[in-house]
Amino acid sequence: MLLKRFFDEKLAQTSYLVACQHAGVALVVDPNRNTAQYVEAAKAENVRITHVTETHIHADFVSGARELAQTTGARLYLSDSGGAEWKYRYAAAEGAELLTDGTRLLVGDVAIEAVHTPGHTPEHMTFLVTDSPTASTPMGAFTGDFIFVGDVGRPDLLERAVGAAGTMESSARNLFRSLKAFSAYPDYLQIWPGHGPGSACGKALGAMPQSTLGYEKLFSWAWLVATEEEFVEKVLAGQPEPPAYFSRMKQINSDGPGPGGSARPPSISAAEMASRIQGGETVVDVRPASDFAASHSRGAINIPRNRSFLTWAGSLLPYDRDVYLMGIASDEEGVAIARELSLIGIDRIGGMLHAGEMPGLAPAGIETTST
Amino acid sequence: MLLKRFFDEKLAQTSYLVACQHAGVALVVDPNRNTAQYVEAAKAENVRITHVTETHIHADFVSGARELAQTTGARLYLSDSGGAEWKYRYAAAEGAELLTDGTRLLVGDVAIEAVHTPGHTPEHMTFLVTDSPTASTPMGAFTGDFIFVGDVGRPDLLERAVGAAGTMESSARNLFRSLKAFSAYPDYLQIWPGHGPGSACGKALGAMPQSTLGYEKLFSWAWLVATEEEFVEKVLAGQPEPPAYFSRMKQINSDGPGPGGSARPPSISAAEMASRIQGGETVVDVRPASDFAASHSRGAINIPRNRSFLTWAGSLLPYDRDVYLMGIASDEEGVAIARELSLIGIDRIGGMLHAGEMPGLAPAGIETTST
Repeated sequence: MLLKRFFDEKLAQTSYLVACQHAGVALVVDPNRNTAQYVEAAKAENVRITHVTETHIHADFVSGARELAQTTGARLYLSDSGGAEWKYRYAAAEGAELLTDGTRLLVGDVAIEAVHTPGHTPEHMTFLVTDSPTASTPMGAFTGDFIFVGDVGRPDLLERAVGAAGTMESSARNLFRSLKAFSAYPDYLQIWPGHGPGSACGKALGAMPQSTLGYEKLFSWAWLVATEEEFVEKVLAGQPEPPAYFSRMKQINSDGPGPGGSARPPSISAAEMASRIQGGETVVDVRPASDFAASHSRGAINIPRNRSFLTWAGSLLPYDRDVYLMGIASDEEGVAIARELSLIGIDRIGGMLHAGEMPGLAPAGIETTST
Repeated sequence: MLLKRFFDEKLAQTSYLVACQHAGVALVVDPNRNTAQYVEAAKAENVRITHVTETHIHADFVSGARELAQTTGARLYLSDSGGAEWKYRYAAAEGAELLTDGTRLLVGDVAIEAVHTPGHTPEHMTFLVTDSPTASTPMGAFTGDFIFVGDVGRPDLLERAVGAAGTMESSARNLFRSLKAFSAYPDYLQIWPGHGPGSACGKALGAMPQSTLGYEKLFSWAWLVATEEEFVEKVLAGQPEPPAYFSRMKQINSDGPGPGGSARPPSISAAEMASRIQGGETVVDVRPASDFAASHSRGAINIPRNRSFLTWAGSLLPYDRDVYLMGIASDEEGVAIARELSLIGIDRIGGMLHAGEMPGLAPAGIETTST
């Protein structure tokens, strides 16, 4: 058995490839839209991606599961638990196999068991992984947004981000019960979570890539509470405001996301960018806030390219109209930003302008200002 | 606390950076000669490398510990256990702090405890890691070549590779006792080993990046034996012949390795390469075996650039004379090969010739042949 971990820093999100080298087959768990990375890793390890799954309907990025299954010919495995509102509406069209609590699948010699762990979301699945040629019990679990290192997934997102009124407390109670039930697994179980620090899907996520069930039971706040009431109170307290784009992600990911956008946005001239600004288009200046404050074009939004870039972009940028980038340092940076935006479904990049060409905006009639 | 894992595929070797973000400091464990990777990772995480250590005197690659400490100004921590023959002879010159069983150090809020675990080598240390602000007991251990995933370090290397006659069985007994003593730690302890599959430092290393103590105790052959006698017999059976360069690595790493060689070997002409071959220099043709078989220059050695490249290179190439590369696909490949060879101390690359220029060898007087 072989495990590869893929951590996307901008999304603070983790996906995994687990493979049986003997049979030459692999499962990808929680792929994001950068699907090429899984295909390349599988190729390097001489295995074929035959299974694609996800722990739940993600709210914080566009899922790459459908696209990855389509491009590799792999079978999709999607949760069918949690009630009518939380179904994958594209499951039938893709011939996906539906998962309920206890569903088992074999990826070569790697045995996967789905465990229904509602709380963060009603349909959430955790996947136990057993290396069946050498062991009779699981080595680890892909816990998605159920158990993180030092934290658990937040149960308030449906209510706060998706508007499922009155679900916050009942989700917290479900989460507590899921944790109680999961505690029965052995201490040595490796916990492979869906997020690292910086994700808005939990509030106190640790910076370690993974943990173990026994360690979490001893030191995570979620196991140190005495009662369900105390858990409910604590898990709902102090959760940050969810980013505005989360509700849209949920919709895209249950409807079935299409393939990612174009990787290379067109370079446009200062005169063309000026006319876009004058036409009221959405133009993002990606330079650091200090550069923007010193001097910028009126009509441009500043979203500095730091670790919060996607959170702000998802909250401020439209999904259904072209977006323009300016202040990029190089074509490579423009391409990288377009790829990052595509992770949250912003695929329509109409053009990009280098920082060095921005002085050309003034002669083209764009007023420069400072804050 | 933050953990970064660095896996070198060519060496099948793992090193780690563990940091306290709060204090902005980091420890690197078992660095190889590609020291830039640790410096870059530390920079990206906004921490400074202040501590450098290694689990033992490595036999399979040149240690980067001394160079990394020198370039970063970090303190070196080196084992002082295991007897007079297994000392770091450069420890005093570098002002290294010496480690014995039970030595504790603090890397910001990360507490490290050295545990003497002889067996693979007499001076071997395992490092327990405690995230002291959030936990009172260790989360994991850097086990080096003591415990691997599904295997343990081989205790026969000193005798077979270094010529320490009669040590094989006593080392195996020491290893068994180290395992027994280490078994007292909790099941949930994460095991962060020094090698992955493909290393000659164990025989049955799994492909998973890490394990837990509880899982190893249940499923690793090393814990499933009934007695010390059975362990000694099994651990010594079926060990592969150690690569010929291991004894030289041990010597370099205890004497104190110098900095790595030049990163960019000179490109030379076919006529120059021809004169090197005629002068009896060591010339390595790095093309696949099938290409070499079809047609090659007499006097060149074929070491195809695959996963066994360094094992063969370490066995066949001299350390004290220039080595020449031919059959490279590009300058980048030549540079990459030079870096790989430097990992095992082969630093003197006299020149390199592209595959496309090899037809020029014949007019320069080099006979072409096929096997």
